[in-house]
Amino acid sequence: MSGDVAIALDAMGGDRGPEMVMQGADIARLRFPKVRYLFFGDAARLQPMLARLPKLGLVSTIHHTEHEVRADEKPSIALRSGRGSSMRLAIDSVHDGRAAGVVSAGNTGALMAMAKFVLRTLPGIDRPAIASFFPTMRGESVMLDLGANVLCDANNLVQFAVMGEVFARTVLGVLEPSVGLLNVGSEDMKGHEAVRDAHAILRATALPGRFHGFVEGDDIAKGTVDVVVTDGFTGNITLKAIEGTVRLYAGFLRGSFRSSLLARLGYLLAQPALKTLRVRTDPRRYNGAIFLGLNGVVVKSHGGTDAFGFANAIGVAVDMVMHGAIEKISDDFTRLAALPNGSLAASG
Amino acid sequence: MSGDVAIALDAMGGDRGPEMVMQGADIARLRFPKVRYLFFGDAARLQPMLARLPKLGLVSTIHHTEHEVRADEKPSIALRSGRGSSMRLAIDSVHDGRAAGVVSAGNTGALMAMAKFVLRTLPGIDRPAIASFFPTMRGESVMLDLGANVLCDANNLVQFAVMGEVFARTVLGVLEPSVGLLNVGSEDMKGHEAVRDAHAILRATALPGRFHGFVEGDDIAKGTVDVVVTDGFTGNITLKAIEGTVRLYAGFLRGSFRSSLLARLGYLLAQPALKTLRVRTDPRRYNGAIFLGLNGVVVKSHGGTDAFGFANAIGVAVDMVMHGAIEKISDDFTRLAALPNGSLAASG
Repeated sequence: MSGDVAIALDAMGGDRGPEMVMQGADIARLRFPKVRYLFFGDAARLQPMLARLPKLGLVSTIHHTEHEVRADEKPSIALRSGRGSSMRLAIDSVHDGRAAGVVSAGNTGALMAMAKFVLRTLPGIDRPAIASFFPTMRGESVMLDLGANVLCDANNLVQFAVMGEVFARTVLGVLEPSVGLLNVGSEDMKGHEAVRDAHAILRATALPGRFHGFVEGDDIAKGTVDVVVTDGFTGNITLKAIEGTVRLYAGFLRGSFRSSLLARLGYLLAQPALKTLRVRTDPRRYNGAIFLGLNGVVVKSHGGTDAFGFANAIGVAVDMVMHGAIEKISDDFTRLAALPNGSLAASG
Repeated sequence: MSGDVAIALDAMGGDRGPEMVMQGADIARLRFPKVRYLFFGDAARLQPMLARLPKLGLVSTIHHTEHEVRADEKPSIALRSGRGSSMRLAIDSVHDGRAAGVVSAGNTGALMAMAKFVLRTLPGIDRPAIASFFPTMRGESVMLDLGANVLCDANNLVQFAVMGEVFARTVLGVLEPSVGLLNVGSEDMKGHEAVRDAHAILRATALPGRFHGFVEGDDIAKGTVDVVVTDGFTGNITLKAIEGTVRLYAGFLRGSFRSSLLARLGYLLAQPALKTLRVRTDPRRYNGAIFLGLNGVVVKSHGGTDAFGFANAIGVAVDMVMHGAIEKISDDFTRLAALPNGSLAASG
């Protein structure tokens, strides 16, 4: 057994099951030679798979359970009756220090409920948020919340801003990340009370990064700011709308290339260059949403991803751990809570 | 003077000024030979322009005013002090029957405030909504509200559903439009109270179209439903995020084609086919957002559009008038209000 960092993997989550998770870990193994893996799931299925991946076997252990959380299970039910599930045991291993982070492609709501219950939120944070990064005209930006909190008040948004800023700084490596609050216009008077109040608080607070002010929907792809802050309702719908639009455009593009013989020939010539486009917009590259604000590293992979995408989700967890992101978020909240403006402190 | 339908044009609205508006009307003139135009604005500037477009001159009149609503003016200020503005006079001409509809590329908030004040909402409708249509994998769909109402309750969303359904049926020509409520998941328990309550009301009401239930962000581009209903905050941000994504993807595509000599050659061969792609995703084709729920046809053009885009916005107004969309919305609300389930009736 070797390796400095251990990552717990919920082997039973995701549409393509344990095979995808294990193949994903095998890809991640090549990228992160110092990481070892704790697989939680049905040993009868996992052992023969791992036997076929001997190099992965050297850095892996299997932790047997026959229970798993169903994809359509209600979070509250999963929380009550899923104590022996692969998802829950993987989270438990982070809590008791056997693993430094957990990755699951399973039920998002159940993962959040269990992670909150087992790991708790960091001091000063009311509610965790789901964050992810995505390509823009200027590089990459982070957006949160992507669906953990359907309704958010001003304090929630402010806390998301601080967490997102730390994430952009530590994991994406942006020196002084700019933070924008998503709204229907850029003037101070625009939007509803929660965004206007959050705007006022962020203006008055000495954030570690730069507060840009309000941004609009088209600023997301422009990369106007490094961190886009919004409530979970808007964030979830916007992110999925963007993903849908990329697929639509790619579909239109394929249709165009198939529409004539000359176009097909043109496609053949341009194919190597177009591969760059495909790579840049490949959703698997951006797979791995982070549950920020918890006392531990929890990464949610898309349920429908493949091994390549799952390996990227593992990469996000490894980055979070390696960069000590949780500790930095915690430090920032401690520092901000000590400032005269106490509005960043948790209200609950 | 000829023509069966008169459209009032706010000649002073938009970033490119009266020239763009007049050139746009000249393009629209070719498409709609039975339409005549009432230009509201500075006659000293408009008359020489119109003199250079003699065929447009035959179906046009100029209504002089030196006042205009500034792009950054607060709606409440515009409403109080903009009584003599080109925007207000154009709306007035719809109210007194000289024009059947109005198109403006000016200040959206001011246009909505003035249109609501002058034209009033239809019986049974609390608040008008901004609607627009856009390309999908299956053709075209309508989305509303795109920003008129930052906060919406369940009744507002239900009213938007009915208005959007009539619009899809009468203007887009969909026989039995399907309506979806934008949410963070498709299960009944997902989302906040307003969407869940609206869902329950729409399930229980005999809509003229089909109520599909909840849809998610990626269903917009898929074209899962003909009408996507949401609050103005989410709708505005989502629409702009989609527009930004299309520009990002197009930028990536241009970059790919420029990245090698072979790719450039491939582009030349595929160019005619790629033109189809450009046309399909050209935002000017989808220019012209409708203010639904008012007692009159009011269309808002993008401020930054060109003459081609403005002509399309005129086309939307003409379609609304020709198909009697306002009367049909009014009829549907009268009919629905008479049903035992009275929750569709305006609460205010």
